[in-house]
Parts: sequence; C-alpha cells; structure tokens
Amino acid sequence: MALKTLSAKAAAALDRELMSTGAFSIDQLMELAGLSVSQAVYRVHPLSKGPRILVAVGPGNNGGDGLVAARHLRHYGYLPTIYYPKRSKNELYQRLAKQLEDLRIPFVDDFPTALASTDHVVDAIFGFSFSGEVREPFPAVIQAMQDTKVPVTSVDAPSSWNIEEGPPKSGVGSAFNPNVLVSLTAPKPLVKHFTGRHFIGGRFVTPAIAEKYGFDLPEYEGIDQVVEVGPDGHKL
Amino acid sequence: MALKTLSAKAAAALDRELMSTGAFSIDQLMELAGLSVSQAVYRVHPLSKGPRILVAVGPGNNGGDGLVAARHLRHYGYLPTIYYPKRSKNELYQRLAKQLEDLRIPFVDDFPTALASTDHVVDAIFGFSFSGEVREPFPAVIQAMQDTKVPVTSVDAPSSWNIEEGPPKSGVGSAFNPNVLVSLTAPKPLVKHFTGRHFIGGRFVTPAIAEKYGFDLPEYEGIDQVVEVGPDGHKL
Repeated sequence: MALKTLSAKAAAALDRELMSTGAFSIDQLMELAGLSVSQAVYRVHPLSKGPRILVAVGPGNNGGDGLVAARHLRHYGYLPTIYYPKRSKNELYQRLAKQLEDLRIPFVDDFPTALASTDHVVDAIFGFSFSGEVREPFPAVIQAMQDTKVPVTSVDAPSSWNIEEGPPKSGVGSAFNPNVLVSLTAPKPLVKHFTGRHFIGGRFVTPAIAEKYGFDLPEYEGIDQVVEVGPDGHKL
Repeated sequence: MALKTLSAKAAAALDRELMSTGAFSIDQLMELAGLSVSQAVYRVHPLSKGPRILVAVGPGNNGGDGLVAARHLRHYGYLPTIYYPKRSKNELYQRLAKQLEDLRIPFVDDFPTALASTDHVVDAIFGFSFSGEVREPFPAVIQAMQDTKVPVTSVDAPSSWNIEEGPPKSGVGSAFNPNVLVSLTAPKPLVKHFTGRHFIGGRFVTPAIAEKYGFDLPEYEGIDQVVEVGPDGHKL
C-alpha cells in the first residue's frame, strides 16, 4: 500500500505548523532534514564508491537542507563541493555556508566542470515550494543532471518537477529522473512518476501532526533518520 | 594515549567561538549535542533492556541537551519521563519542552517515585559551567542517582562534580560515579576520576577549532554521532 502523499499546499502548512504551535526553529528542522539527506547519501553511496559529492544548492530552504547535508557528509569523510550560484542574504543560509567554508569545503561557479569530476550529485535546488518556470542559471544545471551518468540524489523533489504533476511535459527537466529521492516528512504526489530509490527523512513529525495531515509515520529503524520505501512510497 | 581534555574555561570559550565566528546557532548545536546523547543511550541501553528513560533536566544548556535527547529517544521507541524542576524562562528551552509535550512525554515532580519505575536515567542537570554548591532541589536528586541501581548516563559531566577536580571531597555527589558519560566536543579533566563507559559526542567541531583548543578530533565511525573511548578518554 502506498504511503499517503502531501500536496505542496499541505507541506507548506505542515512546515508552518511545526514552526508555530510545534515550537521548532527553522535551524532545528533544517539541521534534521539535512542530516536525513546525508544519511541517505551514505546509504546509497558509501565512501567506497568515491568520496566526491557535488551539492547543487538553490536559493531557498531546499538549498539550506543541501548545505547542512554537505557539512555532515564532510564529517563522515566525503569531499563535498558546493555549487551555490544564487546566494541568499538570509542570515541562516549565510551561517550554513560559513560553516562549510570553515571546513574548507570549496564553492565553485562552473557546474559542468564540477560535474565532470564528482562521484555523486545532491540536487538541493528546488523543493516543495517550487512552481512555474526554472529560472537562470538553473535550466542548464538541471539539463546537466538529466544528461549525466553520475548518480543524482534529489532532496524532497527532483528539481524542475511540479510537486503534484511530476516532470514537466516538455523542455528542461522533462526527462530528469534522479537515481535517489529523499522525501522530507512525507512523499509528495510527484512520487508516482519517480522510479529510483526512495527514502523518507525528517524524524521529528509527531503522531498528532501526521494524523492531522492524513499520513502514516514511516517505520524508521533504530536511530536511523531515514527509511527506505518503494519509489511511490509503499513500505518495502 | 589519553585524549587531551578541555578545561571548563576552554570549553566555554569553544562554545562562544562556535556561536560567533563558527556561525552556529545554539539551536543547531543543542540539537546535535542532544542527538549524540540519544545515540549513546541507544548504544548502552538498547530498547530490549526496557523502554523507560527518566531524564533529569537542569536549568541551563546541559538540561537543554537532555530535552533534545528525550525527544530523539521517544522517536526511537523509548518512553521518556522528564524531571524538570527549575524550568527556564529562556525561549529555546520552553520550545524544547513544548516539543516533548506534543509527543505526550510526561513531566513529573517527584524524582524518587519516577526513579523507582524507570529502566535508565539520563543526568542532564549540570554541565561544564557548573561550579560551587549544588542548589535545591538537586542535592536529593544527585543523592538518589548515587544510591540507585538503575544505570545512569551523565551528559558532559556527572552532576555535582567539579569540572577540573572531579567528585566533591565530601557530601552530595562524592560517591556518585555514573555508569556512562557522554563528553561533548572533548572530555573534561574530571574524566580522570571516571570509571564507566565513555563516549565523545558533538560531531560538528572543525579540525581548525580542535587544533586551536589543543585536542584531537575523535575517530567517529560511519554516520555515528558518538564514539566510545576509554574512561579517561583514550582511544579503544
């Protein structure tokens, strides 16, 4: 049985609720979301497959999750590189970027060149709040992630995909199907078009919140911050 | 060879540095510290040993780490109970407590009664900033933790111990030697008096910070947020 999915609107409402009545700070939630992503990458791409991880970081919260994941991956022994072309002036993202600079993690401007010398890509460009057109400079980045043979892990949504409808019918991203997806809190409707390895992360949702938003809490094991499910979200 | 230790003064300076030039927020650091503690408890006290965990929470940052650990332990399937007699008005601690209430984790006023029906205790009363006398109502709590046969895990320091000198020469805490200690970022000098199982946690310290403060980063494995070391901090 497929796990219930969370529409873009419901996902936004859930986030707002966690940070208001739920009393979480965005720092906390982003730390745990990014930690989930780092654990999924560790699972699908152990260090023995190559330590180089290219993290493509978008301008919003999805990008923030990517910055946190990169830090944890560095502590695990990986060698991340960050592509972060639209740096936010938001204080939180600036701090997350500084934490990476203090670990001497390089920031690069040229995505294709970085892609040619990495072992894995983390797509943290757009998340559940994405809609409409992919803006510059990201069309070429998404095209490159679509064309590459390097495995790609997407955070919450394959970037460019419509959260309810999945890949765009034509143009940039229409044939982008990442190898791995980490759905945060719950899968979004787009997962019906996803065919790769699928993890759920974000082990901070209370049973009351899950019930209110109509989804089941995934059955995490032990101290894991992620759990693998089927491509469409069903229990394995 | 014993790991280098961090004096109370150096530990305070390191914390300040992480939150100033290091660009970490206290929310982030406390989340990762509490996560470390939860992982150590999971290691020494798997669910099969009994799910009930009594968390004794002090008024400061050590208590905050305990509140975070309790939340993670609940998500792992444990049944925490919180003893938090001196609730801080600090907004962060209030939020951490609310997160526990939303998981229906009980807060209790009577420590001895709670102790009589738990499987493990987490001592998150005082940390590296403790000095001087143990104030009310904690003397009886520390005495109870000293006398009980229930295993106790202390966060960063056995409460009542002097950070440099170890257990007090007489009175409350002089015979308190918890079963487990989770040293955060680095062991404190008091570990030379500690004889139980010892973990290091806080996997966010950069090599540059460790070098500046004169200690070696512990060799964490995989995605672990804690690593077990000898009682005095030597590598196992």
